[in-house]
Amino acid sequence: MRIDGTHYRSIWMEENPGLVKVIDQRRLPFEFSVLELKNVNDAFDAIANMTVRGAPLIGATAAFGLYLAAYRSSTESWREEVQAASENLISARPTAVNLKYAVELLMDKVSSVASRESMIKELFHLSIQFAEDEVNRSKKIGEHGLRLIKEIHKGTSRPVNILTHCNAGWLACVDYGTATAPIYLAHDQGIPVHVWVDETRPRNQGARLTAYELGKHGVPHTVIVDNAGGHLMQQGEVDLVIVGSDRTTRTGDVVNKIGTYLKALAASDNGIPFYVALPSSTIDFDLSDSNQIEIENRGPEELRYMEGINSETRKISRVRIFSEDSMVANPGFDVTPARLVRGLITEKGICNASEEGIKSLFEN
Amino acid sequence: MRIDGTHYRSIWMEENPGLVKVIDQRRLPFEFSVLELKNVNDAFDAIANMTVRGAPLIGATAAFGLYLAAYRSSTESWREEVQAASENLISARPTAVNLKYAVELLMDKVSSVASRESMIKELFHLSIQFAEDEVNRSKKIGEHGLRLIKEIHKGTSRPVNILTHCNAGWLACVDYGTATAPIYLAHDQGIPVHVWVDETRPRNQGARLTAYELGKHGVPHTVIVDNAGGHLMQQGEVDLVIVGSDRTTRTGDVVNKIGTYLKALAASDNGIPFYVALPSSTIDFDLSDSNQIEIENRGPEELRYMEGINSETRKISRVRIFSEDSMVANPGFDVTPARLVRGLITEKGICNASEEGIKSLFEN
Repeated sequence: MRIDGTHYRSIWMEENPGLVKVIDQRRLPFEFSVLELKNVNDAFDAIANMTVRGAPLIGATAAFGLYLAAYRSSTESWREEVQAASENLISARPTAVNLKYAVELLMDKVSSVASRESMIKELFHLSIQFAEDEVNRSKKIGEHGLRLIKEIHKGTSRPVNILTHCNAGWLACVDYGTATAPIYLAHDQGIPVHVWVDETRPRNQGARLTAYELGKHGVPHTVIVDNAGGHLMQQGEVDLVIVGSDRTTRTGDVVNKIGTYLKALAASDNGIPFYVALPSSTIDFDLSDSNQIEIENRGPEELRYMEGINSETRKISRVRIFSEDSMVANPGFDVTPARLVRGLITEKGICNASEEGIKSLFEN
Repeated sequence: MRIDGTHYRSIWMEENPGLVKVIDQRRLPFEFSVLELKNVNDAFDAIANMTVRGAPLIGATAAFGLYLAAYRSSTESWREEVQAASENLISARPTAVNLKYAVELLMDKVSSVASRESMIKELFHLSIQFAEDEVNRSKKIGEHGLRLIKEIHKGTSRPVNILTHCNAGWLACVDYGTATAPIYLAHDQGIPVHVWVDETRPRNQGARLTAYELGKHGVPHTVIVDNAGGHLMQQGEVDLVIVGSDRTTRTGDVVNKIGTYLKALAASDNGIPFYVALPSSTIDFDLSDSNQIEIENRGPEELRYMEGINSETRKISRVRIFSEDSMVANPGFDVTPARLVRGLITEKGICNASEEGIKSLFEN
């Protein structure tokens, strides 16, 4: 998508070989800076220190990391070095399923290469293809979701108001995003859309990242606190909710950023369609009972401290926003039961959030 | 309630005449400081600049302000000065209903006093009585709500988990609070309680004030983001929700801090009792249609900036937490429909959130 008129992806290969670039997402929205990844350690660090984040982008970064490992490998022990790099990369973010998936997919495909040169060449093409596939999946999700927006647009003379939570945008993917993909396609086709962006406490991915990427691409949007969405729905100010998903059971229960469940309840209470946009890799076909999913409890610092631009020094700085004496609980995700989800938007089409619905798309 | 072992009210009269003291709530929870109000202008400023906040406390401050106006008045034009002070005080926070109520109540009672001395004496007693009445109403709310907590406590061996939103605590009242009153009474009687404190974006009254006052009184509590309450309810971690109200229709619809509606939906979805604690002065007996209530839209700075203790300088400072290019919407309140409210806890008892329920308490 565009940043100030220039098209960007969140990760890309440079013309000179052995060089990958990423947007440093730790500084957004305060500073836009591009970081060079020259070797697999750079790729590892970028994943581990959250320069890159979002499951699809983490996967793509790992794929490019394998290529860098091969490119910088020695002529003697190239195979061992790439193998060691693959094992190391998987440990960069232990809970990211896509990371393991990407590494294993590529390593499987290069298991029988016979020379260092063909290893480099293969991983070059495979990593580019991996990122391309990611983009195509996002674009497909966008095309399917676009139909929903067009349908709503037919019935209204004002912009279609879409509410989203967290960042399931192109910054989390390679391009287009998941929840944002239908929005970008609609906007680029001239369909008037306006996005309500949930701030998404405690890490503020909505206010920091979603608002940033929508704004830079030129999509009209308004930041709201997570508390406000229900009221806006009561007032008829929301036509459609689209969120992403970290994991979805084969029965259609949706694990997503904490607070998603509350928006799904409000959408249901006000008869507003609530959709989840997700690549099929997010569906856990082995899992039918969402009670089996352990929800990660994160550290208290995410609530207690807030980062921003200091009003006096103009530098990025951190403030503690409440007492150190209070305890903090910080569950990272919640489960939205399938009954509250109008449909799943996948790269293969839209289906009901149910075992039958998912089967209808993925078992034919 | 107690702060580090000492009992405080949010406003009190000193022994030497003509001196009122308040806790400066603008600095909480980072600094505890007491401000002296020596004349009616001090009282006006304290209300206008939010040194004091919360409808009941604003009313009490205005009452004491009238006494200060009389105490400092000149021997010639004392009546005119008190009259002018009363008109001025009402304008300090134009939307605060209690402010007007308090001023008119006291002015009505002193309309026929014949001398400056009796005006001072009358307003001295009336303002103290006004604050006492406020405390007694809160305490009564506490006693009625305590029955609910005791009932839950009977059925469980662990602490009773109560979720609250915003600050309907003693800092907003003179003592006890409304939503917090049952909690303080339970805690002081040795019934184990634990409070989930919603951060309450955008002004963070939960994290800043409710957590502070519960902590200082010794009540176990945990700060959570506004997004987390639904998940905790799904997990069985919430036994009871108690919130305050800014205004309640005679049919039981509840206007309260933005985000209250989302918690009421989640409580309903999980079969958890959702109660609203409110003095009867909050019930608008003229209003049956909550759609007629205009919801205040507040400025964007409340979302865009965050105040806290700077991690380096240790001083209170402000950071901008997202881009200045994004639009912001900031509705201050929402309406929780009566159907989601299990009951209203008032100083006269607990009733259903319905026209019949309210009538049963207030028309006998």
